Amino acid sequence: MKKLLLLGLALPSLAFAVPPVPQRVGEATVALREQALHHDTHAWDIVEGLTTEVGPRLAGTEAEARARTWAVRKLTALGFSNVRVEEFDMPVWVRGEERGEILAPFPQPLALTALGNSGATPARGIEAEVIGFPNMAALEAAAPESVRGKIVFVTHRMGKTQDGSHYGYFGAARRQGPSVASRKGAAAIVIRSIGTDSHRFPHTGVQAWAEGVKPIPAAALSNPDADQMERMLARGRPIRMKLLLTPRQIGSRKSGNVIAEVPGRDPNAGVVLVGGHLDSWDLGTGAVDDGAGVAITAAAAKRILDAGGARRTIRVVWFGAEEVGLFGGNDYRRRHANELHASASESDFGADRIWRVDFALPASAAAVADRVEAALAPLGIARGRDRAQGGPDIGALVAGGVPAVTLQQDGTDYFDLHHTHDDTLDKIDLAKLRQNVAAYTAMIATVADAPENWTHNPPQQ
Amino acid sequence: MKKLLLLGLALPSLAFAVPPVPQRVGEATVALREQALHHDTHAWDIVEGLTTEVGPRLAGTEAEARARTWAVRKLTALGFSNVRVEEFDMPVWVRGEERGEILAPFPQPLALTALGNSGATPARGIEAEVIGFPNMAALEAAAPESVRGKIVFVTHRMGKTQDGSHYGYFGAARRQGPSVASRKGAAAIVIRSIGTDSHRFPHTGVQAWAEGVKPIPAAALSNPDADQMERMLARGRPIRMKLLLTPRQIGSRKSGNVIAEVPGRDPNAGVVLVGGHLDSWDLGTGAVDDGAGVAITAAAAKRILDAGGARRTIRVVWFGAEEVGLFGGNDYRRRHANELHASASESDFGADRIWRVDFALPASAAAVADRVEAALAPLGIARGRDRAQGGPDIGALVAGGVPAVTLQQDGTDYFDLHHTHDDTLDKIDLAKLRQNVAAYTAMIATVADAPENWTHNPPQQ
Repeated sequence: MKKLLLLGLALPSLAFAVPPVPQRVGEATVALREQALHHDTHAWDIVEGLTTEVGPRLAGTEAEARARTWAVRKLTALGFSNVRVEEFDMPVWVRGEERGEILAPFPQPLALTALGNSGATPARGIEAEVIGFPNMAALEAAAPESVRGKIVFVTHRMGKTQDGSHYGYFGAARRQGPSVASRKGAAAIVIRSIGTDSHRFPHTGVQAWAEGVKPIPAAALSNPDADQMERMLARGRPIRMKLLLTPRQIGSRKSGNVIAEVPGRDPNAGVVLVGGHLDSWDLGTGAVDDGAGVAITAAAAKRILDAGGARRTIRVVWFGAEEVGLFGGNDYRRRHANELHASASESDFGADRIWRVDFALPASAAAVADRVEAALAPLGIARGRDRAQGGPDIGALVAGGVPAVTLQQDGTDYFDLHHTHDDTLDKIDLAKLRQNVAAYTAMIATVADAPENWTHNPPQQ
Repeated sequence: MKKLLLLGLALPSLAFAVPPVPQRVGEATVALREQALHHDTHAWDIVEGLTTEVGPRLAGTEAEARARTWAVRKLTALGFSNVRVEEFDMPVWVRGEERGEILAPFPQPLALTALGNSGATPARGIEAEVIGFPNMAALEAAAPESVRGKIVFVTHRMGKTQDGSHYGYFGAARRQGPSVASRKGAAAIVIRSIGTDSHRFPHTGVQAWAEGVKPIPAAALSNPDADQMERMLARGRPIRMKLLLTPRQIGSRKSGNVIAEVPGRDPNAGVVLVGGHLDSWDLGTGAVDDGAGVAITAAAAKRILDAGGARRTIRVVWFGAEEVGLFGGNDYRRRHANELHASASESDFGADRIWRVDFALPASAAAVADRVEAALAPLGIARGRDRAQGGPDIGALVAGGVPAVTLQQDGTDYFDLHHTHDDTLDKIDLAKLRQNVAAYTAMIATVADAPENWTHNPPQQ
């Protein structure tokens, strides 16, 4: 034993690596994490309250305003400081009636929903032949004369991935499909839902018209309805469809970010930003997207608050108007990008177990990342291979140099519910929610109390 | 060995039980069963075609008439004999618009659907306070003055069972709840769906008004919406709800049973009846309920047809108008109850694996039941402890003495989809569907070719 010890001391890397800061996870952090893991009730209370008492809360609507009122009351009651709303203006699109049906040769209704910023049909709807495309490349390659006046159907199917990375690729049908179809003169477009379930819930989601493109009616079919459309088209007879969508652009309205803080002891050490988005799509009650995220992050901050706070200020931001174009994230960046942020973390990927942590911390905070990693490991979380990008509302901040810590939820089933009527409280598992709170608590405790000092990263090119 | 053999011969029960009929499963039956299990395409073709080319087919509507036309064409093309429609008249209720929302204190929409024969609200809907009851007993015990003018909400929750037996008990809220609520002066009733899923699909289903009771609006909330209503009521504030339902009774219309046969070699040996129901609820495409049933039974009969038929006539009956009051079953009984039926079997419990077989055969056919049991065992099916009751359309026939063989599907997940928008083709698993066809094929082959003769059972008391 003595020999080994001497041998150890003889190694330079051990002899000289006397750390100026803790190398182990502190007892206080462990206690906070374990309390959250086994006993947290704050997160459930928040997501239960928000989804029950407010329900759906589309950005810019009266429902989102009620959510802000609810949020201010809740965060104040929890004892946070500096609870406030930072308002901004935004253009608002609201859903109207929506119906689709096959007229011939196999008459039957279809389950569909308008995509964000969809154009409207006349009040009686439109009737046109359906032209099907297996994917976006096929639509892009199509001659305009083959598409003109028809209802375009794009049906490529998204699969499940743990990291959700396929959303980018397969989401193109929603994000670019409508503009491509409009440019070619289509009467309307219906896409297979960007979702991984097989239930008759269509998945909505935002799309923006490319410069100069005329809005046309744009909707998503549920996956079983997209299957049905494929089977009908495979029979080789012309498929005639009726589509009625009456959404409207109602002009500029107020939205806002709700902010609450746990003031830190060292005002020069930077802010630890955590949050999610308060708005939801209008179809479900926004439990998983993103009631869970605001609940998890505020519950974790509340646990630090109750433990007496930390060196750094913890800032909880419940962003407004994320779903429809990141208006809340952009407003926050406009107001706060020049403040020193020690780190930023957004939870906007549901409430399944966190399995991975990624970092974008400067080299001077490398040991902080190591300690976060160690604090999370007992929760079944390991460091990933990627640099943290931040979530949707903080992505631009992080690209601009704000350090980030990303706690990644398991997204395998996330796109089963995403943007559907079915995103409701019953889909949240309390044990998994607590694991999320425990992870955020341990991360915040470690970062906010780190004795190291660091500044922002260089902006990404 | 010799000794054992002699000993065996010395036992009277062995010495004299020389059977006049096969005690083993015949090679031909085994071959038919295995072909169905591994290669059947008929069942998939039928359920795929019916759900795609016809889709929803509410009894008494033009859609159900299209289903009959489709069925006659399909059964004729498959080579069945005596393909025909036996028409009957029935009263028809059709769904209208349906919307529900909480007005105060937590305004938000609800996912609901009208129950069969629901009354209508005015075109603008009704607004009333909600009064909640945990179960039917509590509603029945309520003082009428506490209920008068309110929207009754009954929320007892159905659990999963393999044999589906809880449908009877928990279904009471749907079948009797509306009449009980109306008698007490309720403005309307909304029940927790009679279903076992946690998705925002309300489950419709028929209910009939008790003698002299005034129809009121009656709807089912999806299970997540019923959870939401419970959470709102638990907060103790008055819950104000708006309900809009505009269904209509449109009077008498035609429905009909579609019948096809594989003529038997012995016209005096009785008919082997197999079938399911052709109509579906209007919300989904009726894949599991009961596209699967008509597909499985016809596919099995087709396999016997292709093998050259059997001693007995096999009669495939695709009943009309089951969902809304067993009109097809009643019409069949009126026309055919006096014909000799060797057995009757209805498949109306989805397309999950068959796990159990029950019999109601007279003693003279006891050996036939034994051979059926032996033929099914390799498919993972064993004899149950109950006497076969038949399915919904043949229940009265069986009670009247017609022998029955019931092949029971695993119903654990059946009530996830039952009577919802989500009953679509993607829910059917080809391997399980083939196991069903194999079981029906083996059963039909055994019963239809049995050399024994038997007559009906005595009517049940």
